[in-house]
Amino acid sequence: MLYVPHQRDTATTALAMVGLPARGKTYIARKVARYLNWLGHPTRVFNVGSYRRQYLGSHQPHDFFDPDNVAGKAALLEMASSALDDMLSWLDHGGEVAIYDATNSTRVRRQMVQERCRKHGVPVVFIESMCNDPAIIDATVREQKLNSPDYADVDPDTAALDFRARIAHYERAYEPLDDPDSSYIKIIDVGRQVVLNRIRGYLPARLAPLLINLHITRRPIWLTRHGESNFNVLGLLGGDSELSPRGEEYAKNLAAFVHSQAPREANVDVWTSTLKRTIQTAAPLTRKPRAWRALDEIDAGICDGMTYPQIKEQMPEVHTARTADKFRYRYPRGESYEDVIQRLDPLIIQLERQESPVLVIAHQAVLRALYAYMMDKPPHECPSLPIPLHTVIQLTPNAYGCEERRFRLDPILIEPHHSQPPAP
Amino acid sequence: MLYVPHQRDTATTALAMVGLPARGKTYIARKVARYLNWLGHPTRVFNVGSYRRQYLGSHQPHDFFDPDNVAGKAALLEMASSALDDMLSWLDHGGEVAIYDATNSTRVRRQMVQERCRKHGVPVVFIESMCNDPAIIDATVREQKLNSPDYADVDPDTAALDFRARIAHYERAYEPLDDPDSSYIKIIDVGRQVVLNRIRGYLPARLAPLLINLHITRRPIWLTRHGESNFNVLGLLGGDSELSPRGEEYAKNLAAFVHSQAPREANVDVWTSTLKRTIQTAAPLTRKPRAWRALDEIDAGICDGMTYPQIKEQMPEVHTARTADKFRYRYPRGESYEDVIQRLDPLIIQLERQESPVLVIAHQAVLRALYAYMMDKPPHECPSLPIPLHTVIQLTPNAYGCEERRFRLDPILIEPHHSQPPAP
Repeated sequence: MLYVPHQRDTATTALAMVGLPARGKTYIARKVARYLNWLGHPTRVFNVGSYRRQYLGSHQPHDFFDPDNVAGKAALLEMASSALDDMLSWLDHGGEVAIYDATNSTRVRRQMVQERCRKHGVPVVFIESMCNDPAIIDATVREQKLNSPDYADVDPDTAALDFRARIAHYERAYEPLDDPDSSYIKIIDVGRQVVLNRIRGYLPARLAPLLINLHITRRPIWLTRHGESNFNVLGLLGGDSELSPRGEEYAKNLAAFVHSQAPREANVDVWTSTLKRTIQTAAPLTRKPRAWRALDEIDAGICDGMTYPQIKEQMPEVHTARTADKFRYRYPRGESYEDVIQRLDPLIIQLERQESPVLVIAHQAVLRALYAYMMDKPPHECPSLPIPLHTVIQLTPNAYGCEERRFRLDPILIEPHHSQPPAP
Repeated sequence: MLYVPHQRDTATTALAMVGLPARGKTYIARKVARYLNWLGHPTRVFNVGSYRRQYLGSHQPHDFFDPDNVAGKAALLEMASSALDDMLSWLDHGGEVAIYDATNSTRVRRQMVQERCRKHGVPVVFIESMCNDPAIIDATVREQKLNSPDYADVDPDTAALDFRARIAHYERAYEPLDDPDSSYIKIIDVGRQVVLNRIRGYLPARLAPLLINLHITRRPIWLTRHGESNFNVLGLLGGDSELSPRGEEYAKNLAAFVHSQAPREANVDVWTSTLKRTIQTAAPLTRKPRAWRALDEIDAGICDGMTYPQIKEQMPEVHTARTADKFRYRYPRGESYEDVIQRLDPLIIQLERQESPVLVIAHQAVLRALYAYMMDKPPHECPSLPIPLHTVIQLTPNAYGCEERRFRLDPILIEPHHSQPPAP
């Protein structure tokens, strides 16, 4: 909803992760980076573990991480410091939010981070992940850490033993966040409890809804455009037309697909836009979908109801400006992709919160924006992401992103050339 | 952004306040009620203190509140129970969110609340306000409590002494929230720290951004429509026209007004919509206003660019449907007032957060929606709130609402009859 170009001169921020190994720090860091990049705030994760692997190789045994190992400690400090240098330099050269992904598990280390950032005029917000649920820790160790480059070619049981010993070294020295004057967000047991301390800035406060709704329940999210509409048949933009006979056939096949794919006993939520063609597509599944105005198609303003060739002929300046920057271009009296992303923000929070399957029936441009968030695509790719008609895109969020599968359902459409790549 | 009619069947929720006297419980309760009512969720505050005053009269001395005063304790329990009965009955008859405003300062009392709600199938979220900053408590006692009906006709020093003794009685028995299994939001020192425990539902999570951004810094918020535009002169709806010569004169007078009224040294933020007439109105103050798309005028859809008499003549069905329910009526391919409120939500959070003065230059319908929030007006009044051209509305948030002052600036306009009461 914000007019983003005016926010570009906002100050830089550093988010510094805090927590023992296997507490989901990298998961949270990447999720936050994906969300902020999508919202238009250039964000990058600086992972100290990658520096260690790059400079020292992958195979440090657990006693390298023993706080009493003087040589190990010095080497780790040097890696932490290198990552910090790079991070500050990136912020000096156009970056907006840097996420410093390291354990930062002692007060001394956090003071160093804070001091270095202070000298560069960069405020620091710590994000601590605490988790004492053995089942969650165990799952994290098994699923993520043992697949990490640190344990490539190592027998899983040996790796698990070594990794647990590494955690134990950190545990001995661990000091949780408790400074009442510093700015921090503490996440306990994957969002069961969230503590926000001195969180006042615009950006950190914006993260709260995302971080409150963390969960790791596996569920599919299905994205689909409405069935073919009468406007699609005519190649017209926008409008609020009804489904064509082929579109109605797709609606029936979509209902059959959802019934066949939905996990047993699961309550599938059906979301549509407020436009007829999406509500009609939902009809064989439900007469009462949740109709979001935020899912309405990009507003083509004065070009609504025209064809692409008409725009090119009658408004060559629109065609030229749009071709030059399709992501930021705002139709006269209408919207840009950037605008669409801002209005989809509350819907993304709701999608993250949702633990049951969701079927989203919407439109090409809004689905491109949703897909860009889910699959972590850079903004400029958004206007050319392929979201064909009569296709269900199944996205299943996992530890670090989404698994994707696509299902083309009958009737298969051959779309006219002009309605595909040139968005929306 | 949500299509509200589909949310109406959401479940009911009880929010129960927790905290010692003079910790801002009523302030928070009213703020939350105002916000939720504005967003379209019927919310009501049930204040146990009012029940006590109504049934027992205003002048209980402090020892009435002594936990060892058996008669007092029984009477207070009876009042608490009556308020709870009324609250549950209200939720049974169409209410959506009830806020139970009482100290609820012991575990036993909270268990009673939870148990009674559970029997009605109503989930409870506790909202605790803790504050140990003597300056804040002192200010609250002086500003609010001594003006309360409890101390009408009592000498202020006597009243302060009595009230402090009353707080001391509660302090002896106070047990802060600590049950890890219950759903609660704990606010410490007016938002310095906020703890969210098992907050998962849509509504409670939606409160977090509001509660994080609590502050009590006094600052003016100025609302004004753009200067008169060429479309205003012609009586046309919507459009993106330029200022008329009289509109340009207003822009200069507005700049002079802000310079004369702004507190010294204050940084005034200037917000506009993305439409030319608001950006031009800001020009004498700043060439770089913060332009929000959320502040764009209500989208009149297919009626954009028409006059009201034209709509009445050419689309009588639009005119009739709109007259019947101006708040919910959505222009074909356009928006309703209800839609406008949803898109203003992030802006309200930003306005609440802001500690410096803000000048909002926008349009009639969006300013009606903002004004309805600030002044706690019921939704159905929204479309008829008077927001004339060339007038600055100064709102200064205080403990329980806003102080309002209006300034008409030159050139004074006599608006044509059709452009005022019939919105937008």
